[in-house]
Order: sequence, then C-alpha cells, then structure tokens
Amino acid sequence: MGCPPKFTILQPKPVPPGSKVFEVKRAAVLEVFQDKVPVAYYLPKELLDNIACDVTDIPAKCGILTAEEIAITEDYDTVGLAAAIAARKLTAVAVAVAFAKRAIIAHQLTCCLTQWFMEEAVAQAQQLDTYLAEHGKPVGPLHGVPVSIKEHIPIAGVSSSSGCLASIVLDKTDSQLVGILRRLGAVFYCKTNQPQSLMHLETDSFWGRTTNPFNIHLSAGGSTGGEAALIAMKGSVVGVGTDIGGSIRGPAAFCGIYGFKPTSNTLPMQGFIPSPFPAELNILGSTGPMCRSLRDMDFFMSSVLADKPHLLDPRLVPIPWTGLQTSSTKILKIGIVENDGFVEPQPPVKRAIAWARELLMDARHTGAISIKSFEISGAAEVWRTARRMYWPDGGSGCRDAILSGGEPLHPLSEWIWKDAEPFGMLTAADVSNMRGDRDNYRLEFARAWQEQDIDVLICPAYVGPACAHDTAFTWTYTSLYNFVDYPAVVVPTPIVTEVGEQYDPSYQPLSEACEQVKQLWEETDFRGAPVNLQLVARKYHDNELFGALSRLKDILGLN
Amino acid sequence: MGCPPKFTILQPKPVPPGSKVFEVKRAAVLEVFQDKVPVAYYLPKELLDNIACDVTDIPAKCGILTAEEIAITEDYDTVGLAAAIAARKLTAVAVAVAFAKRAIIAHQLTCCLTQWFMEEAVAQAQQLDTYLAEHGKPVGPLHGVPVSIKEHIPIAGVSSSSGCLASIVLDKTDSQLVGILRRLGAVFYCKTNQPQSLMHLETDSFWGRTTNPFNIHLSAGGSTGGEAALIAMKGSVVGVGTDIGGSIRGPAAFCGIYGFKPTSNTLPMQGFIPSPFPAELNILGSTGPMCRSLRDMDFFMSSVLADKPHLLDPRLVPIPWTGLQTSSTKILKIGIVENDGFVEPQPPVKRAIAWARELLMDARHTGAISIKSFEISGAAEVWRTARRMYWPDGGSGCRDAILSGGEPLHPLSEWIWKDAEPFGMLTAADVSNMRGDRDNYRLEFARAWQEQDIDVLICPAYVGPACAHDTAFTWTYTSLYNFVDYPAVVVPTPIVTEVGEQYDPSYQPLSEACEQVKQLWEETDFRGAPVNLQLVARKYHDNELFGALSRLKDILGLN
Repeated sequence: MGCPPKFTILQPKPVPPGSKVFEVKRAAVLEVFQDKVPVAYYLPKELLDNIACDVTDIPAKCGILTAEEIAITEDYDTVGLAAAIAARKLTAVAVAVAFAKRAIIAHQLTCCLTQWFMEEAVAQAQQLDTYLAEHGKPVGPLHGVPVSIKEHIPIAGVSSSSGCLASIVLDKTDSQLVGILRRLGAVFYCKTNQPQSLMHLETDSFWGRTTNPFNIHLSAGGSTGGEAALIAMKGSVVGVGTDIGGSIRGPAAFCGIYGFKPTSNTLPMQGFIPSPFPAELNILGSTGPMCRSLRDMDFFMSSVLADKPHLLDPRLVPIPWTGLQTSSTKILKIGIVENDGFVEPQPPVKRAIAWARELLMDARHTGAISIKSFEISGAAEVWRTARRMYWPDGGSGCRDAILSGGEPLHPLSEWIWKDAEPFGMLTAADVSNMRGDRDNYRLEFARAWQEQDIDVLICPAYVGPACAHDTAFTWTYTSLYNFVDYPAVVVPTPIVTEVGEQYDPSYQPLSEACEQVKQLWEETDFRGAPVNLQLVARKYHDNELFGALSRLKDILGLN
Repeated sequence: MGCPPKFTILQPKPVPPGSKVFEVKRAAVLEVFQDKVPVAYYLPKELLDNIACDVTDIPAKCGILTAEEIAITEDYDTVGLAAAIAARKLTAVAVAVAFAKRAIIAHQLTCCLTQWFMEEAVAQAQQLDTYLAEHGKPVGPLHGVPVSIKEHIPIAGVSSSSGCLASIVLDKTDSQLVGILRRLGAVFYCKTNQPQSLMHLETDSFWGRTTNPFNIHLSAGGSTGGEAALIAMKGSVVGVGTDIGGSIRGPAAFCGIYGFKPTSNTLPMQGFIPSPFPAELNILGSTGPMCRSLRDMDFFMSSVLADKPHLLDPRLVPIPWTGLQTSSTKILKIGIVENDGFVEPQPPVKRAIAWARELLMDARHTGAISIKSFEISGAAEVWRTARRMYWPDGGSGCRDAILSGGEPLHPLSEWIWKDAEPFGMLTAADVSNMRGDRDNYRLEFARAWQEQDIDVLICPAYVGPACAHDTAFTWTYTSLYNFVDYPAVVVPTPIVTEVGEQYDPSYQPLSEACEQVKQLWEETDFRGAPVNLQLVARKYHDNELFGALSRLKDILGLN
C-alpha cells in the first residue's frame, strides 16, 4: 500500500510564507479548491518529481486526457471551436470536459488557476447542448466555448479577489462583460491567477506563483499570468485579462500567445473591482482577449461589441468594430522601435525585431508597406512618472488591504509602490497637475507620431523574452502604451530563446535600468522562452490596428 | 461746445468695486480697450440715457451702420455668409467691418466684449480677399467668416484671462481650435466676456457685467454670456464657447440663440487654459459653437472635425461627424422632462415644454415620433455632489488667483464654491471615491434611459427664461448633462416671457431650491426674455442628436 495520492502544484520558487495565522487561512482556501478536484486528475508524483523545464507537452502525455480531449484542446482556435460546436461536430459538454480537465492538469504544472468549477461548467454546457438540440441553432456566437476569466473579474456565484486574501468576496452577479459572454454562449469553468497587488508583471499571490510553461524557472508574466500560462498549456482557448501597465501583453508575450489591450473604454469593465482604483485617476486600465489567433481577438471584440455594452456603460466609446475587415488602399507605414532610448532589449528580442524588419523589407512588399525606424522620446521620464501615477495614495490602500489579512508583502508589491510611497497621499491639486504633465506628454507623443508619419509601431513587448521569478522590474515597453492609452497587441514569432545568446560587443548601457536588464540576462537561463512582438496604433485606432494586422498576417506568419 | 464724446458701457447693475489699487489696474485695462474704438462708433449719450429694456433694435437704428452693414449682419447665418463670400457677393473686408462695427455697438449696450481688434480683422480679411481674387477659390469653408471667441481661449497675439484680472496673459500661439478655424478662413475680431471664476451662470468680470439684450435688467447667462449677448445683438454670426456646467447652453438659452455642448473630447480644447483645472478631475468641460441656426452648428462641427484634430490631440474621440445627415428609419423616441424632481421650472419654461409637446403629439407625426414623459432620478443629489466636484481644492486655486490681483470676490464666486470650501483640499483617495460615486450615478442614469427607452430628451435649458443679475443659483437642468457627459443643444422657441405669468395654483415646492426659484420669479420682471429648449442624447451620440434635430426642425420651426 502506497501513500494516498496527493494534489501537488509545482512551485520551483514558492511565494513567501506568512504568519501561522495567515497560513491557516491560506490553507483553508486552497483546500476548498483541492476538494473539487477528482483524484483521477491528479498528476502522478513520479511525473512531478522528474519534470523538465518545459511542461507544455505533459497534458497530452500524462494519460489523463483521451485522444478526443487532446484534439479538442489542441486543434482549434476559438472561431474554429465555436464553429465545430455550432455544426454539432462537438458537444458543448465534451468541450467543457476536455478544457476543464486540461486546465486542472495545467494548474498542477504552472499554478495558473485560482478557482476551478468543472461541475458547474458541465451543467452549463449540458443546457447549451439541449438548447441547440431543441432550437437547431446556437444561443450566440460563443455557444459552448469555454472562456477562462481572470480572478478579479466577477462571475455570479463565484468568488473574486483583488489580489490579496483579505479581498476575497463572493459575487452575486456577473460583471457586465461576463454577463455578455454568458449571453453569447460562453461556458465558465475556471478563474486564473494574478499577483498580490494586481500590479506586478509577475503572477504571485496567496494562490501561489504561476510559472512559464516553456520554462518553469521563468515567470509567466503578470498580472494576467494565470491566463497566459493556461492558454499556452492549451487549458483554455480564450481568456479575459486586464491591462493597466502591460498585464495582458506582458504575460501573453512571456507565454507566446496572442493578447490585445484595446484603447481604454472599448470593452466594458463595469464591476471588475469593488471600489475605485486610485491609479485610474491617472492611467486607465483596459480589458481584452488572450487567445490563439488574430481572428480570435477579432471575434471576441466583434461578438462582445455587437451586444452594445455602451448602452449600459456610457463610458464606452461606441466606435463600430470593423477589426480585421478594416481596409485601406494606402501604403501601410510601419515604425520600428529598436529600443526606447531607455532600455536596450535582450538579445532574442532584438533578434525578433530584426526578423520582422527583414520580412517587411522584402522587395515584394514595396508599394504596400513602408518601414522606418521610430524614435521614442522620454521613455525614462514616463516610467518614473508612471511609477508614481499608479499610486496617488502612496500605495497605502493596496498595502493596507494586503496587511489586513496578515498576508506577507511579496517583494514585487513593495517594489512597485517604492517610488510613490515617500510622497504619501497626494492632494487633488497634485493629481490635477500630474495629469497636466501626463497630457503634455501625450500631446508630444502624438506630435512625434504625426511627424514621423506612421500608421503602426512594431516594438518589443518586454525588455526580454520573459524574466526570472521576482525580477519583472522594467515594463516600459508595455506601460508606455497605457500611459498614452494607445491600443496594442502582442503576437508570437517563431523566435525562441537559445542557450548562449549574448549581448552585442558594442552594447553601451542606456541607463541604470538598462544595465540591470543586461545583468539579469547574464544571470538567468532563458532557454525555451518564446518571443512575441508588439504592434501599436494611435488611440481609438483599434480598427486601424487590426486592419494593419490583417495586412501583416501572412508576411509575419500569424495564425 | 459740448463735452467730448464719452465711451460708455451700459451697466444697470455694476460689478462690485475693488480697492483703489485694483481699480487703477482695471481702469488701465479698460483704457487700452477704449483707445482702439474710433469715436465715430460711440453711441450718443442721449440714446444711452433713454434706453429701453430691450436693446436688440438699437444697432440697426443708431445710425452707425450702413444699410449694407445691417444686411450683412442680419440677413445671414454662418453657412449663408460663407456662401455669399465664396460667391463674391460680399467681400471679407465688408463683412469684417460690418461685424466689428456691430460688435462694438453691442458692447456699449450689453458689455459683451473683453477685446476688440477691428484693424487686425480687416487686415486679415484683406488677405483673404486677395487670396480669393488670386486663386479663384476660398482658403477653406469659413473663408472670411468673422468668428467671436470667448476670452479665455488663446488667439495668437491677443491676451486671454481665466476670469480674473491677475490671470491676464498675452498668448503667443493660437490654441488648437483657433488655429484650425484660422486655417479654415475664419476672421478674428473680438473676444467675449466671461465671469470672474469662469464658473458662474452669469457673466460678471472686471470687464463689467454682460446684460441680456432682450432685457438689460436680466442676466445674459454665463459663463459664455458675452458670446450669447453678442450673437443675439447680431454682432457675431458664430462664436466659440465652453461648457462644464451649462456655460454654452445657459447663456444661449437666456439670449435665444443656438448652442451646442458636444460630448467631452469631441472638439479640441488644447491650450484653452494655462494650467490644469481641478474640476476636470471629476467633470469634463466641452467646447462648441453658439450661432443662429441648426445648420450652423452642424457646419461648425463638420468643418473643424474635417481637419482631424484628433491626430494632434489624442484625447479626442474620432467618431466621424455625420450630424444633420445622420439618418434613421426608426421611430424617433422622445422623452419629455416636465421637471427634474428637484426644481419646477418657471411658467414660461413650462409653457415652452407644453408647446413642444403639443406640436410633437400632432397626429401627423404618429409612426415617425413617439412621445413619453421622462423621469429623472437623483437630480438634487447630483447637484449637491457636482457643487463639490467642481472644487476638489475647496476653491482655493480660483479664490487665491482672484485675490492675488487685489480683485474683490464677486457674490457668485463666493457662492459657487461655498459647499466645497469647508472640505478644503481633497486627497487623491477622496477624489477617487467621489469619481466612483459619479460613475455609479452615470450607470444608473444610462440604465434609466435604456429602461424608459428613448432616443433623445427634450427638457428645460434652465429653471427660468433667464434670471436677474447675481441670482443664477440653480443650473441643474444643464449641469446634469455635464455630470453624465451627454451631448446637448439648446434651441430657440417662439415663446417669449410675458408680463403677469403666474405659477399654477396647484404648485407644490419640490425642494428649498424650488421655493427660491419661485420667489425669484415673483420678485423679477422677466418681460421680453426668450425661452429655449434643450435636447439631449446619450454620451457619444452627438450624431444621433443631430439626426433627431434634423427630423424635428420643421415641426419645431427651427432655423
């Protein structure tokens, strides 16, 4: 007789332990989760004890999934899956079972989930199958598609938290976006991990630390790192993230998937957090899809916006979605960012930029595409300013919430409000003046864009392909586009980080942060980390961004 | 030999006098103005000594204008004037001379100007005439059209102020909107009066108090009261105002002209005030046209937006302008507001609402229009909240600026920040929570709109047709639509206030403010005051608002 099977979540670098009292509370929460998981879905100890860096192949190999479940979870993007269910090639129940099973496998390997409710998902899927059988048509475009949801976004009957344990609440109603997805036919089956302050580009919470599926010693990014890892593990086909500094794009890039941060107030965020977030006095968050293909991002946007969410949330700007159908006969003018003048990207990122440049410069595209280098001014100053603007209360609101539960402050929590803390709580006049400076930068940035005469930017998504745990310090390549509030997507490239890549011998540091990034490169084994690129368009030009993506799809080999 | 002619500005109720030092500074500023005015344009003393309440007929009768100048200033709206100049029926110089002369006459009667620069205008017009002669086509759609500009909006080479004397600065560059208007061919010839704090619905500054042309014992409204009086006197065909609580719509309604407050960030306001205005932490201002016809508002919007101002100011939402061309085959669902549940309007306003209701209920429109009463919730609470939200610094910034020049505080300045002053400077967290409450109201209002199922609202523009000087206390009928940030126009009706109109015997006060409004009605002689109505659409539905106006034009007899 051996030991009873144990539900284990791989944690190469555990999150900091708290007081005994806190750890008791934490254990209780984790136990509620674990109690829902059938033992049949536990990964065997010997597998977990002998794990490689790259865990992406384990779901298909571990023996828990049937061949059909492997096919369901691997062979479709969202559009394809919805079509297969609508055409009755797959039942919603089979799809829900497949993704719920794969998600719980992924969780054991990457700690990507905070909640998992397979039973409810299967019941919901069953109703959808019945509806389709009775009515002969799907309830909506997402009929039967499982959609994973970031922890802080309310789903009726499920709890949510703003990062720390003390903030857990049971939600009675769907947030507006979740309600729309539900009406469109989405099936909810899990919520995904996020960091303690919601403001790390790493995902480390009392639920644990989410690891990068391609190299579990690296971060999955944050704050929507649970989604990114889950989707990269193919435990979800599409998920919902939020991004106020890079929280969709960073993790999507770290995990090699597609992610879109629309211009603020494009998709509804009503109900996403229980009380106003002071950061949004200065910089607005945005919600958007994380998924497997360009057309999935487009499908998500068009499906949600067709529900006219602006009628119930008048913040939302009702620019009609044309997305990938946005056409233009003009030459597409692309600006390429080699570096932002503040931090030189690590070698694989430079390689990805060079790769894109070469493809786009191909003589076959002359007349359709023009390429130029784009110069960014003031990135260092924007980063200094943004780090203060995220915390107009000096970080006290978030810190107090974490500490109120006896929870230990994680290193990146203390780090993220470090520059704002000495200023304490700002006054209304301070905030007003700070916003004035922000607006002046936005005007300068728009003028530079206009003078350099480009339609879209191609730029790094992060200073590196990913980062080691607890070292996500410099996210200027994403946060800049929150600061100016421009829409941006990240897309995968075929570039994968190789062992032994080195900085160019001519490298000269652009800043202290730049030196630190180089040092982190040299200290870390990044093998296997995928590299994404970021594409950016002017504020409110989300359609034009997708129009450009449509023209670049084949050239850059996008899905 | 009589006395030398004297330049006199009628002031039935002068603004409060200041210290000797301040009055010396003030006199110097007024002297600079006066020195520019040729004696030939002075109104004779005997005319000013024997003035009626209604001064609108004096420009045409005073003998200063030629018959052609009277025709130029009276017979056209903006569209007509631009067409006549483009067709060379009128020269830009003749038009500039006519409007500059009429403006200086209007100023002597209503104190509507802060600056007047006929010479520069004629020189600018001369260049435009030369251009047209040489190129055979106008420089742009506004070629040769004189446009009056509110005092605080920068024009290169002209001074501006934020209300008080200490804030006067000489502007080196055009604000973005003025620059666009200039490129489109507009001629600048004057700036118009505004109140001391920029936040009164009365126009009383160190330049003097603007009076209502139809009854100089009444207010012209504010803060864009100078524009409203000038346009009503036909000393301008189109002007630019700003509105954060009713500052376009209030004065336009008091003076019986057209005025449009678009959704915020529709037209550019870049450069309009030298430093960030703390009120805009909570409630955004908006700029828009004040003019003589529906098509003028539409023409102004389409002309300015065709310049793509959003490319240089990314705050601007680039929803394409379709305006009066916005078509719909659906029934137009109109909600009518009898009162806002907080203050019952004065009798002529109720008469105007009844007039509109009757016209719209006509059986001929069945199938095209549906009418229902619309209930507004929470107007009293919104007013209390807004009064605090306008002054997150407790009013100190504005008060200190006024006092720094030794300027006496006007009664409405002290009144406007009265409710915020005891709270002093708010913290960032206070502001964030206040915005949370605001957003909750906005969501409730949107839900109510959706549930009551209407496309546009018809409602009072103010509690009365106008008000006596220094009594513009309750502007809930306009400020509500700044609070929710919905686009709104005011349009004239044929209703004119008559002597002896009384409250309905069944009247019951809805609030203390309601009683005060009744008392003000009974204390004041409102004879001659025109009555406008306000039409409102959902946020960002500015095109739909104009589409509705297009359908209502003939029914309501709009120009």
